Amino acid sequence: MNHHRKQIRAALFGATGYSGFELMQLIDKHPGIEITHATSRQAAGLTLNEVYPTLSRRRLCAPDAVPLDQIELAFLCLPHGGGPGCSMEEAARLRAAGVAVVDLSGDYRLRDLGEYLRWYGSEHRYPELAAAAVYGLSEWRREAVAEAKMVANPGCYPTCTALSLWPLCGENLLRSAPLVINAMSGVSGAGRSAKVANLFAEVNESAKAYNPGQKHRHLPEIRQTLHAMAGGSLPGEVVFTPHLIPVNRGILTTTYAGLKQGVTLQQCRTLYREWYADAAFVHVLDEGEQVCLRHAVGTNQVVISLHQADEHGVMVCAAMDNLIKGAAGQALQNANLMFGFEETEGLL
Amino acid sequence: MNHHRKQIRAALFGATGYSGFELMQLIDKHPGIEITHATSRQAAGLTLNEVYPTLSRRRLCAPDAVPLDQIELAFLCLPHGGGPGCSMEEAARLRAAGVAVVDLSGDYRLRDLGEYLRWYGSEHRYPELAAAAVYGLSEWRREAVAEAKMVANPGCYPTCTALSLWPLCGENLLRSAPLVINAMSGVSGAGRSAKVANLFAEVNESAKAYNPGQKHRHLPEIRQTLHAMAGGSLPGEVVFTPHLIPVNRGILTTTYAGLKQGVTLQQCRTLYREWYADAAFVHVLDEGEQVCLRHAVGTNQVVISLHQADEHGVMVCAAMDNLIKGAAGQALQNANLMFGFEETEGLL
Amino acid sequence: MNHHRKQIRAALFGATGYSGFELMQLIDKHPGIEITHATSRQAAGLTLNEVYPTLSRRRLCAPDAVPLDQIELAFLCLPHGGGPGCSMEEAARLRAAGVAVVDLSGDYRLRDLGEYLRWYGSEHRYPELAAAAVYGLSEWRREAVAEAKMVANPGCYPTCTALSLWPLCGENLLRSAPLVINAMSGVSGAGRSAKVANLFAEVNESAKAYNPGQKHRHLPEIRQTLHAMAGGSLPGEVVFTPHLIPVNRGILTTTYAGLKQGVTLQQCRTLYREWYADAAFVHVLDEGEQVCLRHAVGTNQVVISLHQADEHGVMVCAAMDNLIKGAAGQALQNANLMFGFEETEGLL
Amino acid sequence: MNHHRKQIRAALFGATGYSGFELMQLIDKHPGIEITHATSRQAAGLTLNEVYPTLSRRRLCAPDAVPLDQIELAFLCLPHGGGPGCSMEEAARLRAAGVAVVDLSGDYRLRDLGEYLRWYGSEHRYPELAAAAVYGLSEWRREAVAEAKMVANPGCYPTCTALSLWPLCGENLLRSAPLVINAMSGVSGAGRSAKVANLFAEVNESAKAYNPGQKHRHLPEIRQTLHAMAGGSLPGEVVFTPHLIPVNRGILTTTYAGLKQGVTLQQCRTLYREWYADAAFVHVLDEGEQVCLRHAVGTNQVVISLHQADEHGVMVCAAMDNLIKGAAGQALQNANLMFGFEETEGLL
Repeated sequence: MNHHRKQIRAALFGATGYSGFELMQLIDKHPGIEITHATSRQAAGLTLNEVYPTLSRRRLCAPDAVPLDQIELAFLCLPHGGGPGCSMEEAARLRAAGVAVVDLSGDYRLRDLGEYLRWYGSEHRYPELAAAAVYGLSEWRREAVAEAKMVANPGCYPTCTALSLWPLCGENLLRSAPLVINAMSGVSGAGRSAKVANLFAEVNESAKAYNPGQKHRHLPEIRQTLHAMAGGSLPGEVVFTPHLIPVNRGILTTTYAGLKQGVTLQQCRTLYREWYADAAFVHVLDEGEQVCLRHAVGTNQVVISLHQADEHGVMVCAAMDNLIKGAAGQALQNANLMFGFEETEGLL
Repeated sequence: MNHHRKQIRAALFGATGYSGFELMQLIDKHPGIEITHATSRQAAGLTLNEVYPTLSRRRLCAPDAVPLDQIELAFLCLPHGGGPGCSMEEAARLRAAGVAVVDLSGDYRLRDLGEYLRWYGSEHRYPELAAAAVYGLSEWRREAVAEAKMVANPGCYPTCTALSLWPLCGENLLRSAPLVINAMSGVSGAGRSAKVANLFAEVNESAKAYNPGQKHRHLPEIRQTLHAMAGGSLPGEVVFTPHLIPVNRGILTTTYAGLKQGVTLQQCRTLYREWYADAAFVHVLDEGEQVCLRHAVGTNQVVISLHQADEHGVMVCAAMDNLIKGAAGQALQNANLMFGFEETEGLL
Repeated sequence: MNHHRKQIRAALFGATGYSGFELMQLIDKHPGIEITHATSRQAAGLTLNEVYPTLSRRRLCAPDAVPLDQIELAFLCLPHGGGPGCSMEEAARLRAAGVAVVDLSGDYRLRDLGEYLRWYGSEHRYPELAAAAVYGLSEWRREAVAEAKMVANPGCYPTCTALSLWPLCGENLLRSAPLVINAMSGVSGAGRSAKVANLFAEVNESAKAYNPGQKHRHLPEIRQTLHAMAGGSLPGEVVFTPHLIPVNRGILTTTYAGLKQGVTLQQCRTLYREWYADAAFVHVLDEGEQVCLRHAVGTNQVVISLHQADEHGVMVCAAMDNLIKGAAGQALQNANLMFGFEETEGLL
Repeated sequence: MNHHRKQIRAALFGATGYSGFELMQLIDKHPGIEITHATSRQAAGLTLNEVYPTLSRRRLCAPDAVPLDQIELAFLCLPHGGGPGCSMEEAARLRAAGVAVVDLSGDYRLRDLGEYLRWYGSEHRYPELAAAAVYGLSEWRREAVAEAKMVANPGCYPTCTALSLWPLCGENLLRSAPLVINAMSGVSGAGRSAKVANLFAEVNESAKAYNPGQKHRHLPEIRQTLHAMAGGSLPGEVVFTPHLIPVNRGILTTTYAGLKQGVTLQQCRTLYREWYADAAFVHVLDEGEQVCLRHAVGTNQVVISLHQADEHGVMVCAAMDNLIKGAAGQALQNANLMFGFEETEGLL
């Protein structure tokens, strides 16, 4: 497929979950990054095609078997902290060995480690590394990511939400009112572990809010990012309600945002266009168009449309593939930034 | 199946759409109502099982072929006004002949006929009948329906929304803030007409907001009902965004409702329980439970759960079957009230 | 809903799986049978609505807590033999106490207990009871079921397959050629246990043959029934390949059947009509019509259509709801026969 | 994404259907072929992103507006013959102008134009061009395609079926018995035209055989190819029954093939491995593995598994993406062969 020499040797930790699998497929088409080692604790010793028949015969290894002195980069598609083999520990081990890390878990995203303890249930054991980690929302932190050795790849809901609201926050256009964020996610977002609640016959022909009442772990991450985008503090509360719908992939968010007196829908749309003029992966729709999940699925794009809500507010709709821009795609986008590739390499 | 004599002779106008078909099946199990005539403009002359093989061999007739002097009741599952054979005209013709009517279209729902013209695009030709029609949200207007000869059966979104917010409106607990209503509907809500947008391969593995920007016809109906429930006027705007998700049936609404200072979630839940203590078809979940679409699908129930949103507001989740409580089931519930059957007859 | 006194007191063992749940809902509408006890080993002590919020507040009990002297009938929706609480053991215990049994597991279906050992992996401990059990394919064994105290309710695939081929077997029209049975099933057929293979994101947008190579447990049951229907022995092999497709419910079978010289499609269709003239739950379609899964789902019907295959054979298509006619519905149909109710009571 | 100059200028006729759209996306990533013109009769003058928002702003043109002297290659994603703008006519026009053609319709697939008339309902007006067309089942006709200027791209079912049976036909291992081919297809196979039968709420939670009784247009094409693969004539009938299942994409075939005395499953599997050792897009699974639709969807692969059926026959399971290997992917594979690119270029 490509004619470049693969220059960067990388390891993928946790290759058999949905994100790891997606990332493996993306990097296979990337001309400059080679996955030299792919790990799995459960499937170590098996080949990839024993897990997923049409894949390559590459052999999976145990995490400990990766020779850290032979890789420059590691992608972590691992559970968050607390147990053995978690991202928190592996990231520390890898950084200590000088390996650059893109961590797809929630372990290094929150600045406030008290919040981390509250939402993830574990004391953070590496506060210095957590402080050094760059939050890899690529469009927002492009320069910082380019300098980073430790990147915390954002969660799926926070990516879609934050990019869909950045111009309103960044231009300080929100009035003092709750930001009411309703989101729907496909079921791959719940991971590949066996739970009755995620069986086909439970999810199909159904839908539900889950973790309502402000209990989803992505809420503090959304708050942290939106407050930072607003220059420190949002004028109103963030009300976040995720839903599960019967699709494999994708996130659709619909946000009611109250605006300051006099700000018009048309101004907002113009602003979004300017704000994202150079963003290859953010697509702002024209007036009269509206976001549809399938237009984003399979791509690294966030697609956004804006609509009048009431006299003083807009509805911001956004769609994204939770496994690509919401996980593996953005991880690769960050790796591109970190290692000097084109930001879009392997992602168009 | 039952051992009662069918007492009420009824006609079903528009038997081959999704609502008409559902209603036919429900009434077949009702001990006191008999569908003596079922009409279809396109399929007149065919038998039902030529349209849907496992159904009975009952023959469909043209609307004009129904002998109005031999029926007491008509259910209208017809397009709204404007064209030939529409509900607006048929309802007037049937009422003039003394036949009681339950109309499932939008033609007789709006009190303000200027709003009707604005949202439905037709001048209303029967203002007196429109004024006489009772809005058949059964739980809310039980006594009026029992006296009515002309019932406007509510839309699906308005039914789910209004019942999920009635106690808050009725007890005047809402503060001055937008009521942000997000709703998802199954595809049967779009009817059984051939459109590219509703093809399987367009809808499956996708989701979208539709008619965003306050453009859905159910918005004025929702507003009318909530304002009336609030004793005249709501303190805030109604922001309504419907979404299409890939399920056949069902509506799930998630509403952010700002509350007056000091009103607690627990107070609200207690109030809902009292308010609906006698309602066989409204089910208020306990603390810790949450609404799931499949728990309502196939039933005439609205299932409601309440959750804390922010300091000053609650999320109200509600689920309902759009073709049953949102259409055919409520139509039968209203017919039960009109003709003195048990309200739940044929619906449990 | 009904005005009869519930006469028969029954227990339902295994109320929280898909079949048990379906059976509970059916019997709730049956005028003559009352479920006085519903058991669950895992959920004993909970109420049904703690498992499924919109259900009743009936309390689940442990199997041992059912007072056997107070019930006349037991439905067993339990795992097949081998472990504690299995159907094999419970059926024996219940019969010893004089309770009539309808067993929905595979434990009492096979006449040849060597075959039972081979396919189910356990020695059968109650050969006398197995010999006494009537195979409850209601249409085929109506009289025997009416006399039975121990009924082995057929498997889902065997029910659909056998009823779709009975006239051909019974009239001895098959030639010596393989009966090639392809079947598709919805995912509820796999039960409600947590397995990665049955997760939504694994099943949705996919399909597969499973247990190909003649390895499905329903194969010996299909063979046993078809051979018996043919008066002892079929002229050809039975080749059975089940597939999993992404629907919740339903089975669709497509069978290639080679016919004896001179037998025409039209003769076959006429024969099917005669054969099933009195069967309320078998629906034979007309020429030009074809079976569609959704026409059977939600009903206790098997819907059948016949088509020309090649010069010497026909395709027999059949559709059925796996949880109703393939499990709970036929169990109730059998109970109706056993206790003298109308065969269709509670099932139309 | 790529760093090659696009050398081949091509036109895509019929860019807004599912196949055309898929092909556009594939070619956009191909380093050596450029789509200089994309046509649509209905949408001429619009830009692609007005049809599908996240696509490019490339403008669609009318078929007549393509300057034939400026293109070397045309892909036809058009309706088959009979009406204006059909493949039969456009192919003739393009060939007369010297443009190489890959036609994705059924117009140039059948050798016997009497069969064409019988199955497609139109007299073929270009018998010489039909005789010159190469049937582009790439693996089977690699050399002929490489020399061709007019390629008839195979149908989806014929591609999957023929590749899954080629070794058995080619080695003459089939005995005189019907080849019983059961196939399931996703709904995109039915195209993007508005029909009630393909609405979401009709297809979802359902499944059906369609065109049973040997009435599908792909049957003569399957027969033609299998007979040719067998060196002239198959020993038995071909019985082909396609089914529609609720997935967007993909074909799964399950074929019962009777084998000559003494031929074993293991021999067959070994043979398939040898036969397809050099085929980049045919994947033969190991013993114990079985085909799953999602392993093929999104790829240009046909995945095959073999299983014992009865003493004298095997079940051959195969999975494929109907829009890629079954349409657009194979069209590009053929174009690669015709213009001297790597066969896999743009397809891995």
